[in-house]
Amino acid sequence: PEIPYNARGYTTLAELQPILIDVMPKMAEATQELFGGVALGLANDTLVGGAVGPLSFDGSFRRGWINWRRNVAGPYLHPVGFFLYVDMTGTDSTEWKLLKIVYNHQVFEGVDDFMGAFRNGTLRRLPARPDNHDIDWTTRKRPDGPAATSTISPGPRSVSFAGLRFRVDRETHLWDIKFRGERLIYELAPQEAIAQYAGNDPMQSTTAWLDRFFGMGGSVRDMLPGYDCPHEAVFLPATTNTFAGSITRERAICIFEHDSGRPITRHMGYAEGEFGAVRGYNLVVRSIATVGNYDYLFDYIFHIDGTIEVRLSASGYLQGGFWEPSQEGYGTAIRDTTMGSLHDHVINYKVDLDVAGEKNSLLFTHTHQEEVEQPWFEDDWGSTVLQQKITRTFIESEDDALLKFPYNFQGGYSLVNRDETNRWGIPRGYAIHPGYNPVHNTVVGSKRLLDNANWARYNLAVSKRKETEPTSSSMWNQNLPGAPMVNFHKFFDGENITQEDLVAWVNVGTHHLPQAEDSPNTRTNLAASSFFITPLNYFDFDVSMESLNAILLSPPKNPGDAWGYDDNGVKDSNCVPGPCRRSSTRA
Amino acid sequence: PEIPYNARGYTTLAELQPILIDVMPKMAEATQELFGGVALGLANDTLVGGAVGPLSFDGSFRRGWINWRRNVAGPYLHPVGFFLYVDMTGTDSTEWKLLKIVYNHQVFEGVDDFMGAFRNGTLRRLPARPDNHDIDWTTRKRPDGPAATSTISPGPRSVSFAGLRFRVDRETHLWDIKFRGERLIYELAPQEAIAQYAGNDPMQSTTAWLDRFFGMGGSVRDMLPGYDCPHEAVFLPATTNTFAGSITRERAICIFEHDSGRPITRHMGYAEGEFGAVRGYNLVVRSIATVGNYDYLFDYIFHIDGTIEVRLSASGYLQGGFWEPSQEGYGTAIRDTTMGSLHDHVINYKVDLDVAGEKNSLLFTHTHQEEVEQPWFEDDWGSTVLQQKITRTFIESEDDALLKFPYNFQGGYSLVNRDETNRWGIPRGYAIHPGYNPVHNTVVGSKRLLDNANWARYNLAVSKRKETEPTSSSMWNQNLPGAPMVNFHKFFDGENITQEDLVAWVNVGTHHLPQAEDSPNTRTNLAASSFFITPLNYFDFDVSMESLNAILLSPPKNPGDAWGYDDNGVKDSNCVPGPCRRSSTRA
Ligand SMILES: [Ca+2]
Ligand SMILES: [Ca+2]
Ligand SMILES: [Ca+2]
Ligand SMILES: [Ca+2]
Ligand SMILES: [Cu+2]
Ligand SMILES: [Cu+2]
Repeated sequence: PEIPYNARGYTTLAELQPILIDVMPKMAEATQELFGGVALGLANDTLVGGAVGPLSFDGSFRRGWINWRRNVAGPYLHPVGFFLYVDMTGTDSTEWKLLKIVYNHQVFEGVDDFMGAFRNGTLRRLPARPDNHDIDWTTRKRPDGPAATSTISPGPRSVSFAGLRFRVDRETHLWDIKFRGERLIYELAPQEAIAQYAGNDPMQSTTAWLDRFFGMGGSVRDMLPGYDCPHEAVFLPATTNTFAGSITRERAICIFEHDSGRPITRHMGYAEGEFGAVRGYNLVVRSIATVGNYDYLFDYIFHIDGTIEVRLSASGYLQGGFWEPSQEGYGTAIRDTTMGSLHDHVINYKVDLDVAGEKNSLLFTHTHQEEVEQPWFEDDWGSTVLQQKITRTFIESEDDALLKFPYNFQGGYSLVNRDETNRWGIPRGYAIHPGYNPVHNTVVGSKRLLDNANWARYNLAVSKRKETEPTSSSMWNQNLPGAPMVNFHKFFDGENITQEDLVAWVNVGTHHLPQAEDSPNTRTNLAASSFFITPLNYFDFDVSMESLNAILLSPPKNPGDAWGYDDNGVKDSNCVPGPCRRSSTRA
Repeated sequence: PEIPYNARGYTTLAELQPILIDVMPKMAEATQELFGGVALGLANDTLVGGAVGPLSFDGSFRRGWINWRRNVAGPYLHPVGFFLYVDMTGTDSTEWKLLKIVYNHQVFEGVDDFMGAFRNGTLRRLPARPDNHDIDWTTRKRPDGPAATSTISPGPRSVSFAGLRFRVDRETHLWDIKFRGERLIYELAPQEAIAQYAGNDPMQSTTAWLDRFFGMGGSVRDMLPGYDCPHEAVFLPATTNTFAGSITRERAICIFEHDSGRPITRHMGYAEGEFGAVRGYNLVVRSIATVGNYDYLFDYIFHIDGTIEVRLSASGYLQGGFWEPSQEGYGTAIRDTTMGSLHDHVINYKVDLDVAGEKNSLLFTHTHQEEVEQPWFEDDWGSTVLQQKITRTFIESEDDALLKFPYNFQGGYSLVNRDETNRWGIPRGYAIHPGYNPVHNTVVGSKRLLDNANWARYNLAVSKRKETEPTSSSMWNQNLPGAPMVNFHKFFDGENITQEDLVAWVNVGTHHLPQAEDSPNTRTNLAASSFFITPLNYFDFDVSMESLNAILLSPPKNPGDAWGYDDNGVKDSNCVPGPCRRSSTRA
């Protein structure tokens, strides 16, 4: 079908200039005083317009809101709060009309109406804008502050990286994680891993493993350099106590810097300071535990913006079953008479966050749909708008802190210190954000897991920290489902969790529906699950901007000139290999 | 509290030997004939037992099922289907008892009962096991077959990598993806990206962008080597038609091999062939489009097992608003008077899978909880068991193929060819597996997106492929929400989708609740969303085992000897850099 002219939108804002040039100069006195800028249709205009979409519903009109911004680098972050509703229907721009002006929730019929209010003092003004004086914050120039470098300095037990410092205790167990000199996490460690099976035979239908029984740490093995960890990784030893005595593994922990392969931030723009990128690289701390048939890779992945991804990947052998057609609902044949049996993995972590101090609260952020009316809405689109809205509530009691991620991930959970705000007045926080496979246990109420793995029923939970509740499980929970040494539900006894020392208990997992490709061993890329611990208004801005592994480009002074650049003196060739020529090509 | 003795489980299976040695030799004649093995308590036993957990409920007893496996490498995958229920209560092993034997769903009271049935011919036997003769498949030895090498061979438009070959057309647009010589995907390309805002002002409350209007491909820019893509990436040019004419970008597409930093599979075991690892590395194909304030990174990540991760990451500037307290529910202050406004991103991809041919069906796999009775259950645990079960159904009509991921991700969707099975009789398929942030649009029914982005209501959808339905959107959809050029819902007109040429339309997205750390630019690590296209019984085994970037270890022949190893002649030093010394440490 033909595209209606009024549905064609515009290709550059210049097309809308006829109507904007008609009205904006008439209000220049007001825009200069209110916003510190004018739009006269000149190259050095200090205000620049932006349009929204859609401009039409069905092609019968072309009307839209023009909003104004300061004409500086990153204008998107300098809206002045001044809106024109403009009719641009048809090809004849002399017919275009200004329909409405909105400023600070006041609606004006046109220029005269607005300028009258401005001059006679009835205009209710927006507050002054200190931001107006500083525009560097909307560029990609490195902020003042310490340079984040990327050198790993692993001592025997203490690691620092790009503003981060922490202590590795036993394998998989981190303590006292500080970022930029401030403690973020007191303790971070896996607690327990369950694997609950299903089947049509006595083995699979009765198996519910709790791997801590076998020693999560005690099962850590020496890793294979170049395969389990990259060639350049630093290895640390660990000594663990097992049933068989004390064993020291020389390569129990590996630490390496990993190129994420993508910039952590970047933007392409033509104004001075807009175009540049910061390289993405992470510090990875890994241990691998082999518990019988399964291999668990425990990864802590530290990003330069203060984010930590906690990731568990699984490999190793399935606990196979004898395949026969009556097993159809319980798995898949992976060989003529061997099957992979259906099971769930759920793994619990203790995350003793101390966000801007020990006094923390549990914030639930939730989004929902609302229908609103505004005085400036117009008949073109109806008198109401359907849109999202955020509800923020603090969960006050432990009884309400056994949590699942909301439907469609519309919102989430974070720990914040209500008494400590960032520079913009927002309580400083860290969010628990789902990563890969954010699942909880499918089966609820099984007698074989009656009370010994209650944490597995949720995505996460938050309790008041207690010295008497150091861990969510015990090595003796395996064989005591009816009378466990640690019953996680007992932590949740109605205590108030407002501005208390809190602990988050967070799960990862996999619904493992085995398939032929699990043979011989399960693939880590799909059998991976993770969560992010990530700053939420903890800082005043993105601190990964402090990295020196960054480039900033300057637009050409004259047409045809090259772009200038500043790479902080950090050359790629220092740390990236040339194209690989592997001997594997011999085959 | 004291740990009840009966809850202590066992540390090695050797502890259970008294009862096993008592009963298994008496059945040696039967186990040899039925399973080709015996357990006599000797080092060269050809059957090996395994126990399940839990063995106790509350410490009042210790009883459990012992299952038997062939004593070969990877015994977990050689269950013979023979189960003993054994009472091991108390410390005196002479009191331990065999309570029950289960074989092929028949329950026997003890050894005499079982052997009687074996000898008098009333025993109903399991089918013969061809798998028994071949045991290499449960080792990590490289299978026979072509060696998967890791060399990128990018022609101008055609790329091959580790058994993969495909054609890059325009930026972000892939065609004819073949893996190991067989077509997997005819077309893979982003279709449209929406960004729907909310706010208390005329701009944010009325904005619903459809970025295809601005040209998804036409907005691709030259990338920055070493920052947007690793130093060693290969760049390809692309020519796009924009409103302003035809533009060629020299560095529009980059292709590079990326070390995933973890093995794709590994296992540590002591039998010959059990201990080894395959390095994880991926091929990444990237383009970056800057659409006004936002930068979209389009990544196709090819794994050596045949998995493709489709990932979209966002950076660039927020579309900011003027901050005032009445905006509380619509975002967060990121500066004194600038806010980040709440919005949803949803991006749609066309995935024209052709799985083992063009005739495909849509399989829905769902897991739920069931309560079952079995003749062998015993009073210790009650007469029923709660466990998971899989239901597999084919979705037959397009009307039922507008899909959301199930609650708790209990199941998922795949395209399979019902007429083509793998070697084990399972229809060959590829699954659409959620990755990061599997979300759909929060707002439903908004007049500004009434019918022009209906795909955004779901996680994915599957329709019958039509030449007349080449894409889910159009560049003219932006301004025609009431009368769009392409209304996605019209594709879903009740046609049968059983064994037809199908297309999957898959969404990624982000609920963007801005925060201080979005300033100056949004971070790609959290603003990322992805899905996996991954083999599901498409192969007979994990083909990443064919990689030469692998190591296999051999146990020491004599105590104290070193482990032997075979690395296929591929040396790490050929392709991995030494530890980095960056000039950034000068600061
Ligand atoms: Ca408590
Ligand atoms: Ca705490
Ligand atoms: Ca159709
Ligand atoms: Ca197809
Ligand atoms: Cu598993
Ligand atoms: Cu966004």
